[in-house]
Amino acid sequence: MFPGEIRRRHLGTLLRHVHVDGSVSRTALGERMGLNRSTIMALTAELGAAGLVREETPAETGRAGRPSLVVRPEVTGAYVLAFDVAVDWLVAARVGLGGVVLDRRRADRPRAGADLDRVVEVLAGFGRELREAAPPDAVCVGIGASYCGMIRPGDGMVRFGPDMGWVDQAFGAELGRRLGFGLPVAVGNEAHLGAVAEQLRGAGVGFRNLIYLHGDVGVGGGIIVGGKLLDGDGGYGCELGHMVVNPYQGRPCGCGSRGCLEAEVGERALLDAAGWPTERYGRDALREVVADAAAGGPAAREALHRIGDWLGIGVANLINLFNPGIVLFGGMLRDVYPGAAEQVRARIVHHGLPVARERVRLRVSALGDDATLVGAAELGFAELLADPLGVLGS
Amino acid sequence: MFPGEIRRRHLGTLLRHVHVDGSVSRTALGERMGLNRSTIMALTAELGAAGLVREETPAETGRAGRPSLVVRPEVTGAYVLAFDVAVDWLVAARVGLGGVVLDRRRADRPRAGADLDRVVEVLAGFGRELREAAPPDAVCVGIGASYCGMIRPGDGMVRFGPDMGWVDQAFGAELGRRLGFGLPVAVGNEAHLGAVAEQLRGAGVGFRNLIYLHGDVGVGGGIIVGGKLLDGDGGYGCELGHMVVNPYQGRPCGCGSRGCLEAEVGERALLDAAGWPTERYGRDALREVVADAAAGGPAAREALHRIGDWLGIGVANLINLFNPGIVLFGGMLRDVYPGAAEQVRARIVHHGLPVARERVRLRVSALGDDATLVGAAELGFAELLADPLGVLGS
Repeated sequence: MFPGEIRRRHLGTLLRHVHVDGSVSRTALGERMGLNRSTIMALTAELGAAGLVREETPAETGRAGRPSLVVRPEVTGAYVLAFDVAVDWLVAARVGLGGVVLDRRRADRPRAGADLDRVVEVLAGFGRELREAAPPDAVCVGIGASYCGMIRPGDGMVRFGPDMGWVDQAFGAELGRRLGFGLPVAVGNEAHLGAVAEQLRGAGVGFRNLIYLHGDVGVGGGIIVGGKLLDGDGGYGCELGHMVVNPYQGRPCGCGSRGCLEAEVGERALLDAAGWPTERYGRDALREVVADAAAGGPAAREALHRIGDWLGIGVANLINLFNPGIVLFGGMLRDVYPGAAEQVRARIVHHGLPVARERVRLRVSALGDDATLVGAAELGFAELLADPLGVLGS
Repeated sequence: MFPGEIRRRHLGTLLRHVHVDGSVSRTALGERMGLNRSTIMALTAELGAAGLVREETPAETGRAGRPSLVVRPEVTGAYVLAFDVAVDWLVAARVGLGGVVLDRRRADRPRAGADLDRVVEVLAGFGRELREAAPPDAVCVGIGASYCGMIRPGDGMVRFGPDMGWVDQAFGAELGRRLGFGLPVAVGNEAHLGAVAEQLRGAGVGFRNLIYLHGDVGVGGGIIVGGKLLDGDGGYGCELGHMVVNPYQGRPCGCGSRGCLEAEVGERALLDAAGWPTERYGRDALREVVADAAAGGPAAREALHRIGDWLGIGVANLINLFNPGIVLFGGMLRDVYPGAAEQVRARIVHHGLPVARERVRLRVSALGDDATLVGAAELGFAELLADPLGVLGS
């Protein structure tokens, strides 16, 4: 490796530590990176001059001696634009280093199919607004987008967006073109990005094997194996919502199959089980069922228990396959899980192998509906963290 | 990194290339390792002096110019002992570099429960015989064992061996003690090791995402994600046989659950479906059903089709979760798969998402019943490949 390449890698690694942890002492950076004090000082100075980090005297430590200076991300300089195309909304945000959401725009989205042109038009409008509202010296260093469907990793092509009826739509390329910022748009599946975000900044910090179930109309999945997102050969792995758990008596699924996990625990499964008419749907309807169950309504309670049984079977299967440290419930499953937890746990005890389930934790997502957006921002930061000064042109 | 550490790593990497590929030219080694000709020559000379590799003039290439010398593993010098504790047999083998089985011993094993003492006694006897039969200057560099149950990675403790009724039995430690060779015994789950072996030397060469289903009484799994065996937090992942596919109407499973994949496609499921009495079991019985189906026997054909339906549902789920490049059927599923392939494929088309299944290959294992043994040998070689001269005391 050439000296320039080593320096570039060190700068990226240091910036990543600061970006992920928010605030790291010089001493800790030296220990983590195996570098001496003067090298850390030199690297920090370079990143500081580029407006990416700043150094501060930490608050009183109570210990004797001069405390090690703390390095923090400079939030107002470099930023990314992050987009979230979810089932019920479109969100765009300006996100600073450290994952701080600095500004955002949001539009509700009707459930009926949406064409690429209209979705991209709304998002691009938001993107331009956010850029104009940014401080004049702030620099957009990347663009990331989360999409509620299956994405081809290289070019952000939507291979299958069941909710919008999209097949092979060039979403990433089109959004990049319409924004006109001269930057590519990195696109990821919403549940993949939610898993990454929860592991980085949410309920999954410190876990190397993590399963994130993202509920909306269906159920998506993001699975972290050995610290890395499971992608598979084409980037289409993690589709735990299409794990068949009830092949013969199951409900039909939007994918054309029957008895998929998402058909048994998705939004419509819960609303049907609670006896709600088909014209009532969405997060609000779902929260009404949850509230009704909490108030003791028998039909709503029964519905949640039914969902909990199927969810527990699905999660038990995932525990047997992945032996994860933690399973997280995100999206609408964050609302559903508490009222179904007893059934979920009972199913895990019944169907999970003792050695695989003995240490697993079950939690709701900590980032809530922002998990996918935060994950999209990480896609946007990837190049900056690989080569900080190169991306800034310093 | 210190110079000694770099050299150690280079020696290990070079030996690994030769061990895995069987024969690699000096030129190719230089290209793969990013090292110049004289460094490759020096490393090869060191490994050659230690009796681990030899250089040969390759056969005529038909091209002009002096051909690059080829480096091959020295098969007769260093060896490992590999053990396989399977449902129906105990095997021990002396295995040379390059994965060559040089000598072996085998004993049938009755299906009734077996105590640790008896199993270890047989294996240790085989191990001593194999060592005595080895050439006097051959060196045993490691010991690996495959076991048909769930293994704690660090110390070879059998956490759960359903077939033998073992719970928390110190198999690895006890076998090491009884052999008395002063070497630890590295133990792995049979299906995990089968997956590793198939990826290294079998039908899975070149695939980074691979699923190996190992059938015997039940169905074990080995899953390679991004080139690495999926282990999970405790090393207990990959248990695809305990993925529930038929939770309410399913057959009871040995794990205490119901409708697990292995309950629906394991040996007894097939024999029951074919109408065979419970006193007939084992690989021979199973092969008779397969032969009967091939000859047109309606009950046997129907039984294989039923197994194929459930197997296909399970494999479709795995394809949706892992987006693998290849799915391999090993153990008794190697016999069963061909007569059930039509149903398996139809289920995959029905339940698998198109983008996840479009490129996947389905194959039977290439190493057959030796897959687990070959995988166990790799466990035994791990330390040698990390530090070749250190392990030999050169």
